[in-house]
Amino acid sequence: MAITLSSASLPIFRTGLANLDHCLAKAEANAAARKFDPNVLVTVRLAPDMLPFAAQIRIACDAAKLAVARISGIEAPKFEDNETTFAELRARIAKTQEWLATVPADKLDGREEIDITFPVGRDKTRTLKGEAYLKHWALPNFFFHMTTAYALLRHNGVDLGKSDYLLGAQAGN
Amino acid sequence: MAITLSSASLPIFRTGLANLDHCLAKAEANAAARKFDPNVLVTVRLAPDMLPFAAQIRIACDAAKLAVARISGIEAPKFEDNETTFAELRARIAKTQEWLATVPADKLDGREEIDITFPVGRDKTRTLKGEAYLKHWALPNFFFHMTTAYALLRHNGVDLGKSDYLLGAQAGN
Repeated sequence: MAITLSSASLPIFRTGLANLDHCLAKAEANAAARKFDPNVLVTVRLAPDMLPFAAQIRIACDAAKLAVARISGIEAPKFEDNETTFAELRARIAKTQEWLATVPADKLDGREEIDITFPVGRDKTRTLKGEAYLKHWALPNFFFHMTTAYALLRHNGVDLGKSDYLLGAQAGN
Repeated sequence: MAITLSSASLPIFRTGLANLDHCLAKAEANAAARKFDPNVLVTVRLAPDMLPFAAQIRIACDAAKLAVARISGIEAPKFEDNETTFAELRARIAKTQEWLATVPADKLDGREEIDITFPVGRDKTRTLKGEAYLKHWALPNFFFHMTTAYALLRHNGVDLGKSDYLLGAQAGN
């Protein structure tokens, strides 16, 4: 069976977001065990000029959502960027998952050659064909924010391993 | 044109490794400007029980190399994990790129349904079909180590932005 734009995007984003949610659940449990409020992690950064944890989660969600919206041409719901707690960040992931589940695969397929113009930084745009956009922008961008979120949790002592990122609840550790 | 196993792997890995090399070059220039030896970055970690920078680069290279080797059935060269300098780490990236360039695309295509068994941690293995292996293991794993390397440089004050990770030398900043 040939790989399609839908099979190379939807399952990767949905699995990634499920695994990200699993990492957040482990962080909440770890905070309870170490007796601190998990919400102190919402604002942590790896460098003063990097975005905080909450933004990494929001952008991971939006990277998936906007990639699917741009390739399919289906308008995605806009979520306010106002989460301040783990519960709210996990709800953001859940809302993103719910929307992704409504997108029919055939709305993505066959759109390899469409032009997709997307913002890069504050005042520039870039245009790539559908397939190149998925492979060279949307997927690397999604994993960038997923991994940065993971790195922030690990840097703050949360007991995660790479299998939590790769396998989520199937990690079994 | 349909997406294939080769078009969904080789260009992503080659672009990613080129962008990673670009980030290392910027780190070397930044170390020179800040007047420290870039090789002190080779051993930095985000947490005491995470792998150091050198290992992130090695595993990013091997994630690409082994994914292509396992899908194609072509044996990949084995590199010793003995790099202690930026020059050696950049040579590791270059050697990986050289080998990837020798792999014919048609050796990867059509292998969506083959069983691929690969090590997970020290004493376990996992088996996935070729397509699932690429989408749910090889690509997320590759970007995990690329991003962790980036995060280590940023955490140590190197002047990188996400466009260096996504666009490499085309980032223009």
